[in-house]
Amino acid sequence: MAKKQKSFKPKARLPKGFQDIGADDVRQVRQMLASIGEVYESYGFEPLETPSFEYTDALGKFLPDTDRPNAGVFSLQDDDEQWMSLRYDMTAPLARYVAQNYQDIPKPFRRYTSGPVWRNEKPGPGRFRQFTQFDADTVGTANVAADAEICMLAADTMEALGIARGDYVIRVSHRGLLDGIIEQIGLDGEDEAERKLVVMRAIDKLDRLGVEGVRALLGEGRKDESGDYTPGAKLREDQIATVVGFVEQAVDQPPERGVVAKRVDGDIPSQAYQDALGDLARIRELCRAAGFGDNRIKIDQTVVRGLEYYTGPVFEAELTFEVTNEDGQPVRFGSVGGGGRYDDLVARFTGQKVPATGFSIGVSRLQAALNALGKFEKTAVLPPVVVLVMDAERQADYQKMVRDLRAAGVRAEMYLGTSGMKAQMKYADRRGAPCVVIQGEDERVAGEVQIKDLAEGQRLSEGIADAKEWRETRPAQFSVPEGELVRAVKDVLARYLA
Amino acid sequence: MAKKQKSFKPKARLPKGFQDIGADDVRQVRQMLASIGEVYESYGFEPLETPSFEYTDALGKFLPDTDRPNAGVFSLQDDDEQWMSLRYDMTAPLARYVAQNYQDIPKPFRRYTSGPVWRNEKPGPGRFRQFTQFDADTVGTANVAADAEICMLAADTMEALGIARGDYVIRVSHRGLLDGIIEQIGLDGEDEAERKLVVMRAIDKLDRLGVEGVRALLGEGRKDESGDYTPGAKLREDQIATVVGFVEQAVDQPPERGVVAKRVDGDIPSQAYQDALGDLARIRELCRAAGFGDNRIKIDQTVVRGLEYYTGPVFEAELTFEVTNEDGQPVRFGSVGGGGRYDDLVARFTGQKVPATGFSIGVSRLQAALNALGKFEKTAVLPPVVVLVMDAERQADYQKMVRDLRAAGVRAEMYLGTSGMKAQMKYADRRGAPCVVIQGEDERVAGEVQIKDLAEGQRLSEGIADAKEWRETRPAQFSVPEGELVRAVKDVLARYLA
Repeated sequence: MAKKQKSFKPKARLPKGFQDIGADDVRQVRQMLASIGEVYESYGFEPLETPSFEYTDALGKFLPDTDRPNAGVFSLQDDDEQWMSLRYDMTAPLARYVAQNYQDIPKPFRRYTSGPVWRNEKPGPGRFRQFTQFDADTVGTANVAADAEICMLAADTMEALGIARGDYVIRVSHRGLLDGIIEQIGLDGEDEAERKLVVMRAIDKLDRLGVEGVRALLGEGRKDESGDYTPGAKLREDQIATVVGFVEQAVDQPPERGVVAKRVDGDIPSQAYQDALGDLARIRELCRAAGFGDNRIKIDQTVVRGLEYYTGPVFEAELTFEVTNEDGQPVRFGSVGGGGRYDDLVARFTGQKVPATGFSIGVSRLQAALNALGKFEKTAVLPPVVVLVMDAERQADYQKMVRDLRAAGVRAEMYLGTSGMKAQMKYADRRGAPCVVIQGEDERVAGEVQIKDLAEGQRLSEGIADAKEWRETRPAQFSVPEGELVRAVKDVLARYLA
Repeated sequence: MAKKQKSFKPKARLPKGFQDIGADDVRQVRQMLASIGEVYESYGFEPLETPSFEYTDALGKFLPDTDRPNAGVFSLQDDDEQWMSLRYDMTAPLARYVAQNYQDIPKPFRRYTSGPVWRNEKPGPGRFRQFTQFDADTVGTANVAADAEICMLAADTMEALGIARGDYVIRVSHRGLLDGIIEQIGLDGEDEAERKLVVMRAIDKLDRLGVEGVRALLGEGRKDESGDYTPGAKLREDQIATVVGFVEQAVDQPPERGVVAKRVDGDIPSQAYQDALGDLARIRELCRAAGFGDNRIKIDQTVVRGLEYYTGPVFEAELTFEVTNEDGQPVRFGSVGGGGRYDDLVARFTGQKVPATGFSIGVSRLQAALNALGKFEKTAVLPPVVVLVMDAERQADYQKMVRDLRAAGVRAEMYLGTSGMKAQMKYADRRGAPCVVIQGEDERVAGEVQIKDLAEGQRLSEGIADAKEWRETRPAQFSVPEGELVRAVKDVLARYLA
């Protein structure tokens, strides 16, 4: 950090990959977090906030989608030489918290949390280096009912946010199924880790590319419409047949207990594979008993979830309605959250296996979905009523009007600048004020205030037939006695909200 | 970051100076932020969130209470070699935002924000390296009515949080008064910066040390009760007399326009000093007109506020009720927030002077105050009702009960562990569950559920005279038909809340 000269003027700019969040977005997110939190509380989850920093060794190398330890993390060295990193998700800090406080927490331990996480990655359009996650986790039980509960929680959350039944589905699979297939085709060795990853990514793309696309990625590779070439896993034909047989069921039919097993290439599937099928059947049974049908929570063995640390059931919350992509094509909105069972995270610290399962929502992406569905239109906070300053010497009087309005529950502000009437009207317009309050010398002498309804222009443009009638019934500007200020403003606001 | 061995087990520990925040505290803060935000919104302030990072050169050297540039800040170098720092307050990022978006914001611009800030400082008891601030600022007007509004906002916020009138006061002074005194005693030169700081710190301690303590700190220095010695500013007697004359008025009498000026050692005070008095008189006038008397907003020229960047009125929100300190002595609770006018921050970027004024609340300290006042007692979220698992094969049935309860708005959870009845009761107790729901084989056959009221013990301990009568009217455990589960639980909860 070079010493700055007196004359140095830094450029006012956001750090690369970070964003400012304006009033509308802040309010939308706030409303979302409140709705989600309400569902989580109703399930008995308790809030917990961990700090933004963890010691780097405590975070470990569990960063999603990368195999490089500590790549993609913002780290710095503390003055005692220890490395600290900003959290990249909410799961690693939870594991640290549980390991540190194991004796003091009730078990099972249900906690939820929301807040920023940081990724030191290359930013892109809509891809920021700080974003908000909302997580719920149940720690300390291997009971698959905990996984089922997380699925129900996710489904209830979608509906609490206003997403209609049929517009979302919670897809559930099990890491044991994938591991079984990987084992079956002989890719479970350490030296095959790279190819295993390519296979898992291929399966993950079934939704987007279809069975033939997956087949290509399992084999030599695939060229997409733009001409980009993705190298494949270069599996043998018999290996490809096994994997394709596995994924095809997701296309063909709702999988039932045992169905998947029979398809696995004639061999007897491993015990882990069969246990996974049992877990999934149990999850379905519990969900159905609680009234969640296949239209809300669906077993789908092609759910992959990239994270290395999952050890059991995995979940994906997917929005199934269509939006138009950059190329003008209708596409499914896609994933807004996911999670799964991870039984090894706490063991990193203590050696003791602590089973856990959780679910994480990507808040920005879900917010985009809710906007696409028009879910925020009716919830905006009304901009304030602006009381104009017609005489700088009388600011105390205008201040009093503002206070009377606020006391009646009306958002209100006095114009605080020093400009004239025209600039004040422009300001009120820019603020989106529903109306302004005006008291010049004439009005003061008459004991009156004028109220100008700024919503009128907007209303007119919405196609009212008879402008004359409009003016007669809803005058854009009218006078009332001072004592009726609050009532008159409230009348205008009521029209605004109608 | 050394490469880790497979067998390496990190210790699960919080980074030094950081904290985990449990459910009760998260809920308290959430409630506070909502109350504060509601007041700010009613005044026409709009939410805005800036990211945690700013470029280090954009933060500048405005860190409170330090003269070293960038000391006390967490910084790291981005991959393009630019230094970034975590924000240490909310004002510097606002200045960057305003400079960057000057053409697009309405002026005056009222924004509020809350979130974490970071200080790379030595932690201590109750002193963390990450904490929450809640700020409101008005940018783009030199009108002193904006400062008056901030004072009213602060006073209204205290009352919205439940702090009674008389238990708080917003103290207002003006940097121009202090600057005038400093000039008067000849400490306004660059080479006297160090001594000037010592004088300001001495004035700031009037509340705690009284006039004689301040006098000592202006002279040779002061030894406190513990024997610690604080070196003084070593002023001459005539200089000390001038400063003491200035601070004594705050003790003697409510200052009026002109009163302070007359006291200043016979000399004619500077124009800046007289303007400052004018500003303060105007603030008082506007506040009085809006119904805020001296008992809520009080002019007090001994308010210093440490920040170098203030240029006009300064504010301090002080809680005046007494609490007991570590030594068992009753002391005033003290400051929970402050702010002032800073007209030069945006100019750092653009060269253009943009007047601004703001107020910042230290959320943790205010939370401690509200706890001392018992303001959160009635607002806790009720812990969930726990449905015990008496038969692992019947989890689907228990899950259904939980759902029925939730559907009726009752927080409820099924026990997710695999332990027996005794451990389950212990769990429910640990969770603070108001009651548990039990259905073993006998109850199932009879089509009944048992409800055990866990609040009973607690109630009994609160001194009910006749235990027999208690048991008769409020049985701790009772059976109801399955169909009456929800109603019966709600009855228990109603008693719990009574």
